[in-house]
Amino acid sequence: MTNPTAAMLVIGDEILSGRTLDTNTQHLATRLTQMGIRMAEVRVVPDVHEVIVDAVNTLRAAYTHVFTSGGIGPTHDDITADCIAAAFGVKIGIRDDARAILRAHYDRSGLEFNAARQRMARIPDGATLIDNPISAAPGFTIGNVHVMAGVPDVFHAMVAGVLPTITGGAPLRSQTLRVMRGEGEVAAPLGAIAADFPELSIGSYPFQHNGAYGTNIVVRGTDGGMIDRAMIRVAALAGQ
Amino acid sequence: MTNPTAAMLVIGDEILSGRTLDTNTQHLATRLTQMGIRMAEVRVVPDVHEVIVDAVNTLRAAYTHVFTSGGIGPTHDDITADCIAAAFGVKIGIRDDARAILRAHYDRSGLEFNAARQRMARIPDGATLIDNPISAAPGFTIGNVHVMAGVPDVFHAMVAGVLPTITGGAPLRSQTLRVMRGEGEVAAPLGAIAADFPELSIGSYPFQHNGAYGTNIVVRGTDGGMIDRAMIRVAALAGQ
Repeated sequence: MTNPTAAMLVIGDEILSGRTLDTNTQHLATRLTQMGIRMAEVRVVPDVHEVIVDAVNTLRAAYTHVFTSGGIGPTHDDITADCIAAAFGVKIGIRDDARAILRAHYDRSGLEFNAARQRMARIPDGATLIDNPISAAPGFTIGNVHVMAGVPDVFHAMVAGVLPTITGGAPLRSQTLRVMRGEGEVAAPLGAIAADFPELSIGSYPFQHNGAYGTNIVVRGTDGGMIDRAMIRVAALAGQ
Repeated sequence: MTNPTAAMLVIGDEILSGRTLDTNTQHLATRLTQMGIRMAEVRVVPDVHEVIVDAVNTLRAAYTHVFTSGGIGPTHDDITADCIAAAFGVKIGIRDDARAILRAHYDRSGLEFNAARQRMARIPDGATLIDNPISAAPGFTIGNVHVMAGVPDVFHAMVAGVLPTITGGAPLRSQTLRVMRGEGEVAAPLGAIAADFPELSIGSYPFQHNGAYGTNIVVRGTDGGMIDRAMIRVAALAGQ
């Protein structure tokens, strides 16, 4: 597949400690798949400067796009923006347009626009802001890296804002067939189908329902006609 | 912290496409935290041989333990065991004890123990089996790598089997305080507390409840007395 690729970098001790379940990755993966961008890797890293910088530089060199979540709030452990600036070797400082957005937000809500909140206007040089319609503090895009908040509502809103600015690929289509046979029974014929359609990704996901074994068979690819031809053979497995 | 470290390697196209939400990472992270093992990194990779081999070798060199989920079923896309063997440079083949476990399972359930199902008895040389009380097909431990199934029920059962075999560290304790103040208001004093307790990890997680802003403040570390002292200062933030 020559589709664009993406990596997700989740930044935050709260994911690694088990405190918080990361659902942002699935949200982004689903949206990217719809627009023909293949998510190729996910990493979750702690709030540690060197680790974040290394991960950003590794991933941005390897994939068409990198999306990050987490670490852009007002507190001492929100170090993502500084790490991104370090990864790109650019300066970072409070930017007027970001500060104006935040000031207007806090003026409206009657909260003090204090030093901690002004930190959220610190943006690496050369970045483009990503709108945050929920809580104002912007994300940003620099190079092929899109830096977004970790709070799911805000992450979703930023994804909705940033995806229209990037170029998708041939849509990744998929068809799923639910077969009431164990995965071990369909494995051999499914392997033969996969071998005959090397350009498709054919996955099988076992389940149990009321004590009976079944398998969801998912065929993915960019060529709808090819998927149809593979599915005709997959469908024959259901009847055997 | 000198606690043992761990990485989680999630193997599977279904996570990267958005089809499936990975909950195994949170389950394992929670259990590891309880036994004083710090999860330091998570990676999600596709069903691609070289990518899995590289990730296994990178992670097993960097952390005390590596836990993998996914890719040990009977189908063509279940390539984890072969990748682990390749990463360790050892042979892999059907092992008698694993085959006996599977044969007994399929005999009991009246299903054919066919070639695809026998593939699940392929175990890298030198590995120790991990019991699978749910669906029989074993996981395995080789070196510091613990290879487990992706289906959550089976993953949970394997985690329960494997964790008692490894050595934990000083328990990672945590205390949480819910403060009905915005994150931006507690940020400065919280940063000062964090600076005074460099051995503790102090995180803040904003939330909205009935339109009001609040922050959960979490203090983590191994020294209960130190956490208590930090929490006294954190608690003062709630009353300001």
